[in-house]
Amino acid sequence: MQNYKIKIQYDGSNYNGWQKQGNTKNTIQGALERAVADIAGEPAEVIGSGRTDAGVHALAQVANFKLQNPIPPEKLKEQLNRKLHDDICITDIQLVDNRFHSRLNAKGKKYLYRIQNTVEPDVFRRHLMYHYDASLNLELMRSGASLLVGEHDFKSFCSNKHMKKSTVRTIYSIDITRDEKGEVDILYYGNGFLYNMVRIITGTLIEIGREMREYSSIQEILSARDRQAAGFTAPACGLILVDVEYGKIFL
Amino acid sequence: MQNYKIKIQYDGSNYNGWQKQGNTKNTIQGALERAVADIAGEPAEVIGSGRTDAGVHALAQVANFKLQNPIPPEKLKEQLNRKLHDDICITDIQLVDNRFHSRLNAKGKKYLYRIQNTVEPDVFRRHLMYHYDASLNLELMRSGASLLVGEHDFKSFCSNKHMKKSTVRTIYSIDITRDEKGEVDILYYGNGFLYNMVRIITGTLIEIGREMREYSSIQEILSARDRQAAGFTAPACGLILVDVEYGKIFL
Repeated sequence: MQNYKIKIQYDGSNYNGWQKQGNTKNTIQGALERAVADIAGEPAEVIGSGRTDAGVHALAQVANFKLQNPIPPEKLKEQLNRKLHDDICITDIQLVDNRFHSRLNAKGKKYLYRIQNTVEPDVFRRHLMYHYDASLNLELMRSGASLLVGEHDFKSFCSNKHMKKSTVRTIYSIDITRDEKGEVDILYYGNGFLYNMVRIITGTLIEIGREMREYSSIQEILSARDRQAAGFTAPACGLILVDVEYGKIFL
Repeated sequence: MQNYKIKIQYDGSNYNGWQKQGNTKNTIQGALERAVADIAGEPAEVIGSGRTDAGVHALAQVANFKLQNPIPPEKLKEQLNRKLHDDICITDIQLVDNRFHSRLNAKGKKYLYRIQNTVEPDVFRRHLMYHYDASLNLELMRSGASLLVGEHDFKSFCSNKHMKKSTVRTIYSIDITRDEKGEVDILYYGNGFLYNMVRIITGTLIEIGREMREYSSIQEILSARDRQAAGFTAPACGLILVDVEYGKIFL
């Protein structure tokens, strides 16, 4: 039995998200599992570091799967990439300890939310950014973001009403920058994120940047532990999973 | 009667090219004419500087159209962009002399062909570049390109067998560069290009770069005046119309 750790890049535009569940068709996980089974001749569960929603992208999602009949990693990677549609690409493959589990062992994640803050959208990257044409006050957004950094109960920033597990997470940093072309990037780094959490935080920060709500309202939103207290859910297309971190033992 | 000159950016991935003809559906020209007619309440022919093939993109295609009942240009631009699908964008609009004709007055054009010359394709830009994973000798490609610069009969580089007009064109320059990410850019600048000419030249230069044919064969290809003598037609997705130049009178 061999355990393969893979890094996957994908344009999520044409997929119903990462996770195959019930009758959901056209998922990244489903596409990977079919490709692995076709090549290896045995079924394998491809375990992701976490779900990404429909339309969300990944620069480096991490997953692992186990095979009874080993295939040399480089050969497997090449065969997988040949079989996969061109909006999914395995960028790295490694044999890892059998105990490695891409979700349970994940220690940190980085997500980038990209806002194209210009009058006209960029026709070539419209799937990869959220076009928002009204002006944003980045200083206010940064002040709001700073109140989210640290360990908090993020229940107000979670779409899953029936979440039974802890909604406490730690955000290590939120960096907001604007480039000369008017692209506003929000880079989130934390130990884990709840369902829709990055997109709801982004929507809330946009409302702060528009001066539709006070930056200090973040504290009330956190205390409320109620999804209704926070801002809108920013669209999936602007979100990209950038990196997943693991402890030293699994590096 | 007012004559509007517009610059248009488009991702051609989902279109059957620029030109509406017969029953061809889903063309850039068709989309623009419908939008103009809807807003102006009168039919207008949107004349492009030239056709682009299905799947070819434009950074700055130029077109013009005339309206009996004038609308202020900036207002018209805004309304058009609101109506157009988000893979087409009017980036500029100007009132011009009634004699201005975007095709007949075009003096020069620049096309960029982008090759992603890496092992793995970039999942996020696969519609915008031609992924070609075998190594290319750029020096040989440049030597071949230099033989194409100048005034020549480019009949061998034209897909239209029934072309009755002159197939003589002048190429001012062909610049071939590679960036650190392995993107090979071929920038073509000339007074005009025949049907599929840029894509056939690109295919031929790729064959030279692969050392499948001598760079000096360019001279024989030009002399042959036969499409069969040249290389393959490089895919549409890598091609983008970058600029259209006009004489001083219409600047």
